Amino acid sequence: MMFGNAEPETGRVEAFSDGVLAVIITIMALELRAPVGGSFTDLRGRLPALLVYILSFVFIGIYWNNHHHLFRAARRVTGGVMWANLHLLFWLSLIPVLTGWIGEHYRESAPAATYGVVCLGAGFAFTILTRAIIRADGSDSLVAMAIGRDYKGRVSVLAYAAAIGLAFVSPWIAYALFAGVAVMWLVPDRRLSR
Amino acid sequence: MMFGNAEPETGRVEAFSDGVLAVIITIMALELRAPVGGSFTDLRGRLPALLVYILSFVFIGIYWNNHHHLFRAARRVTGGVMWANLHLLFWLSLIPVLTGWIGEHYRESAPAATYGVVCLGAGFAFTILTRAIIRADGSDSLVAMAIGRDYKGRVSVLAYAAAIGLAFVSPWIAYALFAGVAVMWLVPDRRLSR
Amino acid sequence: MMFGNAEPETGRVEAFSDGVLAVIITIMALELRAPVGGSFTDLRGRLPALLVYILSFVFIGIYWNNHHHLFRAARRVTGGVMWANLHLLFWLSLIPVLTGWIGEHYRESAPAATYGVVCLGAGFAFTILTRAIIRADGSDSLVAMAIGRDYKGRVSVLAYAAAIGLAFVSPWIAYALFAGVAVMWLVPDRRLSR
Amino acid sequence: MMFGNAEPETGRVEAFSDGVLAVIITIMALELRAPVGGSFTDLRGRLPALLVYILSFVFIGIYWNNHHHLFRAARRVTGGVMWANLHLLFWLSLIPVLTGWIGEHYRESAPAATYGVVCLGAGFAFTILTRAIIRADGSDSLVAMAIGRDYKGRVSVLAYAAAIGLAFVSPWIAYALFAGVAVMWLVPDRRLSR
Repeated sequence: MMFGNAEPETGRVEAFSDGVLAVIITIMALELRAPVGGSFTDLRGRLPALLVYILSFVFIGIYWNNHHHLFRAARRVTGGVMWANLHLLFWLSLIPVLTGWIGEHYRESAPAATYGVVCLGAGFAFTILTRAIIRADGSDSLVAMAIGRDYKGRVSVLAYAAAIGLAFVSPWIAYALFAGVAVMWLVPDRRLSR
Repeated sequence: MMFGNAEPETGRVEAFSDGVLAVIITIMALELRAPVGGSFTDLRGRLPALLVYILSFVFIGIYWNNHHHLFRAARRVTGGVMWANLHLLFWLSLIPVLTGWIGEHYRESAPAATYGVVCLGAGFAFTILTRAIIRADGSDSLVAMAIGRDYKGRVSVLAYAAAIGLAFVSPWIAYALFAGVAVMWLVPDRRLSR
Repeated sequence: MMFGNAEPETGRVEAFSDGVLAVIITIMALELRAPVGGSFTDLRGRLPALLVYILSFVFIGIYWNNHHHLFRAARRVTGGVMWANLHLLFWLSLIPVLTGWIGEHYRESAPAATYGVVCLGAGFAFTILTRAIIRADGSDSLVAMAIGRDYKGRVSVLAYAAAIGLAFVSPWIAYALFAGVAVMWLVPDRRLSR
Repeated sequence: MMFGNAEPETGRVEAFSDGVLAVIITIMALELRAPVGGSFTDLRGRLPALLVYILSFVFIGIYWNNHHHLFRAARRVTGGVMWANLHLLFWLSLIPVLTGWIGEHYRESAPAATYGVVCLGAGFAFTILTRAIIRADGSDSLVAMAIGRDYKGRVSVLAYAAAIGLAFVSPWIAYALFAGVAVMWLVPDRRLSR
């Protein structure tokens, strides 16, 4: 059952990750659930759930983008990289359930804080994955050079940590921080491009 | 976490989109839900849900076909193209929930009108995606040349807009318009082929 | 939105079909649902559902195998082939819901007969797909030569048609016919191989 | 419907397996279900379900890794290999439902023992798959050479068999054995690497 720690090509790791992320992003929409009645009033009751869905959709989209760029720069995929990648996918796989939980209880602190914990976990998992790839590729790797400018990643992690604490003051502060991080990643960063 | 705005090859964007569309088209069938009883009478009660499912299946199929052709003509995939693509997938990801909603409340106006809104959103998202690809490839691109003849796209958007308003007269008019658009895309267009 | 009827490479059609079939085969397991209680008695109540799941798993497996062989022989993929392929996937996408329905009502005729209708629909859809590929590739194609020996396909379709009628005598006859067809495909056909 | 037993390239078998495993690993998170209330007390009630989810996530991850290594070493994919692969995916597809079952009834023996049966089934299915690949590739194949050192696979199967019996003493012994096997696979095996 064990065929050595040789490096597989990045192709299948990317394909598997794409599959997992595609299912995550799609399955979340199912958590929206159709309104019970057939009127616009019933639909309005699903609006908070829709807004959390949009937030989570963008969140997964950001990770898909970053994952994409990361593996384009990666050269070798060791066993360590494969498990670091699965570790990231683990945290992201919790997003749909939490999205559903916030959708039902958006006025309470616990769902918002827990969402922050999972975002923080995903953030650290991405950092661990990046380091695993650098360790596999060597310190002169494309990934190592690119990682020097990771201020967006650091700001995100700080914002998520703050959101966990501030969710107990008001979940809305946490939502504002999550949305802020999303906007930061969506706005293209002209200095860095090309 | 950020590795520049360099263009990835179209392969992984297509693979990810295929994954999302495959999940959407399959997950919709789950929204059909098995009849509660074991008789044909129970099955007959699921018939409207089945018809809406067929409509949505064809709708997603049309987008998969168009997406396929669009990316075959595309040369460069920038960050803008990736987000425009995710934006399209966002609208399409709402189709399964709405299909389930119409299946339960097909006699009412709100579900039919909301379905029209999502169809319209997907239509605009496809146009934005097309423009993002043309911007990335340049005005002499294959996509730019093909887009000059996009009368089917325009008729679709007009029909969806009409369906939103006319759903309040009767949802059946809206369904007729949705079905008409689907048939228009299914019938091969001899003048354009080759 | 329309970029001509040019033939895409078979790769993306296969990838999309693989995605849909992978989701179908996996999502069916969810329809099994966990037993309500925590004892083996509760588990025993799920046994008929498990047996229908195995049947449907093999059914989808057979189609995946045949689809695989068909597209390996295919050369050109026209718009007609793409829609014929989606038509096949449509019928197969109904299998999970029907599997769940039979699992709950395996003693009644309607679910068994409806399952037969969907099997028959999938069988005809496969034939249509084969013809669409032959029309695209020409009568001297690999597919055209291979299709001359399609006796297993014909026996399957006859068995499904018989199962629809005989389900009204007893659903168990229908199940025996479905299982017989599955076994026929599972047993390797020595005369044809190589 | 039958196009001979010629060997397809391993690519599509891997892609299909990746799709199935990606859906399995993601769909399990849905079985977690959001807590009913909006407080941390409600979340705490989901903790056992979360722990079983982590166990199953690692379990599927291990199989994905081993599957990956196995097919990298494989040269030919016959009809026998394809069905042996589907047989493995069948056992793995039962993991999400069982994960949900244990999550609800983690203090009882039946779910833990049944989980052990499925783990054992997957273990044997992997062995059968390995043998099918060796039969297809020949006894001088890369897979045949690598399989000589399969002590981890044997220890796993013994541990699963023991877990089935000991679950009736206490389900916690079974969980400890499952977790032990997972840790054994996660810890990199220095003697074997490279």
